[in-house]
Amino acid sequence: MQINGQEYRSVWFEDGRLKLIDQNKIPFEFGIKEYGNYLEVVQAIKDMTVRGAPAIGAAGAFGLALAALNTPEKKFRSYLRSARDELILSRPTAVDLCIGVNYVYESTLKFIPDIPHARQVALLAANEFANKSAAECLQLGILGAELIQPGSRILTHCNAGALATVDHGTALSVIRQAHKQGKNIFVYVDETRPRLQGARLTAFELEQEGIPHAIIADSAAGFYFQKNEIDLVITGADRICLNGDIANKIGTYEKAVMAHVHKVPFYIAAPHSTFDFSCAKGEDIPIEIRSENEIKVINDNCVANPGSSALNPAFDITPARYIKEIITPRGIFAASEAAQKVQI
Amino acid sequence: MQINGQEYRSVWFEDGRLKLIDQNKIPFEFGIKEYGNYLEVVQAIKDMTVRGAPAIGAAGAFGLALAALNTPEKKFRSYLRSARDELILSRPTAVDLCIGVNYVYESTLKFIPDIPHARQVALLAANEFANKSAAECLQLGILGAELIQPGSRILTHCNAGALATVDHGTALSVIRQAHKQGKNIFVYVDETRPRLQGARLTAFELEQEGIPHAIIADSAAGFYFQKNEIDLVITGADRICLNGDIANKIGTYEKAVMAHVHKVPFYIAAPHSTFDFSCAKGEDIPIEIRSENEIKVINDNCVANPGSSALNPAFDITPARYIKEIITPRGIFAASEAAQKVQI
Repeated sequence: MQINGQEYRSVWFEDGRLKLIDQNKIPFEFGIKEYGNYLEVVQAIKDMTVRGAPAIGAAGAFGLALAALNTPEKKFRSYLRSARDELILSRPTAVDLCIGVNYVYESTLKFIPDIPHARQVALLAANEFANKSAAECLQLGILGAELIQPGSRILTHCNAGALATVDHGTALSVIRQAHKQGKNIFVYVDETRPRLQGARLTAFELEQEGIPHAIIADSAAGFYFQKNEIDLVITGADRICLNGDIANKIGTYEKAVMAHVHKVPFYIAAPHSTFDFSCAKGEDIPIEIRSENEIKVINDNCVANPGSSALNPAFDITPARYIKEIITPRGIFAASEAAQKVQI
Repeated sequence: MQINGQEYRSVWFEDGRLKLIDQNKIPFEFGIKEYGNYLEVVQAIKDMTVRGAPAIGAAGAFGLALAALNTPEKKFRSYLRSARDELILSRPTAVDLCIGVNYVYESTLKFIPDIPHARQVALLAANEFANKSAAECLQLGILGAELIQPGSRILTHCNAGALATVDHGTALSVIRQAHKQGKNIFVYVDETRPRLQGARLTAFELEQEGIPHAIIADSAAGFYFQKNEIDLVITGADRICLNGDIANKIGTYEKAVMAHVHKVPFYIAAPHSTFDFSCAKGEDIPIEIRSENEIKVINDNCVANPGSSALNPAFDITPARYIKEIITPRGIFAASEAAQKVQI
């Protein structure tokens, strides 16, 4: 992605360290954080320095590579297993994290007892996972742009951008490609409470690319649906089940219902690692409940009645029946068939 | 209403001045502002020191009484007319404002050319309008509470509380009465972006009354609908049309659609002054578009990408077909019949 005219990824490995664009600071500051051990990576995932399912997957993969690089030979296997478990538990809803960490774990195990070799393989596998994820996002963007008619007004929720992936984005990869093709699109950006990833991150990426857009309060989308000013909706996903149900940022479900009621197509864009082939249906996805302070406090200011509590589910489930199609690097498929099609 | 153990109205007249609870400060500070002329009242309505359709109606009525009290005899009629017009234009969507101001205006005109008498009548009429509004809110709360089953989990949007009215509230009057009757209710409070009237004002009122509740991000309501944890939705309205369409705070339409899709009843509660008998249908209601800074700036902190613009419609239209019934002081009616029934 372009940031201030330079090319960046959101997650990469350099000079023995994992580097992450600090997503809690954008758009107000642009900074890179560096990590030398996996415990710091667990913390970076929990505090959302890195967020977005595919980006978390790559960060987790590099986190396990750091664990392999730093682990004493004596307890290599048990240490690596506990690092794997801690990384996977750092955020429960996005499946990419589990898939990225396990990819590095299994690749590494094959080379035990040759531990120096296993360490090299861990880093190679993490880089391979990240590169594949970036390439898939580019590919799904190119495929997905075919769905976008010239002049389309597109609603997106949260940030499914290059920041949420290793590069290019998922929903925003489609939007980037459509814009590059001169399709004269306009993007409504849900601000995405409580953490405002839409207002902060998606708006930032769209501005960097020169794509026309406006931020709206989440619940103002209905106003524009009613006026027939939204032609399609695209979001990313944190997990896609075998039956086509998906988990994504809280509020996605409401947008899918609104799109359904207004006969507007609702698309999900996701790389291969977002499919959970072990998960039959949406009800089986664990939903992370985050701190009430994300609702009550903004920039260290309490914005709600201090004596009240808040409930903060971070994700919701959108059933397959509300999803027109899922845009993947391997093609665009009906939700109910997508898992089967990408697995082949 | 009870605030810190004392009885208050949100709008009243005392010692020759209009007094308003400053709603921009609650819940962080509790303060009363005083107004000696109508131009200050216009400003208080625009900057939302007073907000909520029935409260604005009463503030507008007292604003015109102030204009009558301060107007020189010579240009009384023309001065009063221009004060009326300015007050009515201070917020375009809520019809109560128009009705409250015109009630005082027409009552006053009848006593011209006896201007000292006309001035007395202006204040009497404003007080009568405010008292009637408070009594109607109490009455609709008592009637509406009959709809609430014991153990109900209720979703509300924005603040339709005592602060939004002269006293008691509309949606919250129903909720207050149900709580007083020991019905063991729980209230999900939409935070209501961009101005957070739910998180600030509704949560404050519920805490003051000891009613169990939790604040949620606006778009988290879908999560609780999907889990069958919302039994009914009640909101207020800023205007009700002859056909039963209503205007209310931005986001109300999405809640009504979600309720409809989940077969959950959606109720509107409103006094007589919220009915606009001159407005045939929702499309005829003017929608106020407010500053993008209400989206981008919270407590003087920019929370969005500074280079992006935002769109901020303040209200949306909920069609009658999504409203189960409208709770009024005269009874509970199907949306499509309510205007006719309350007019009789």
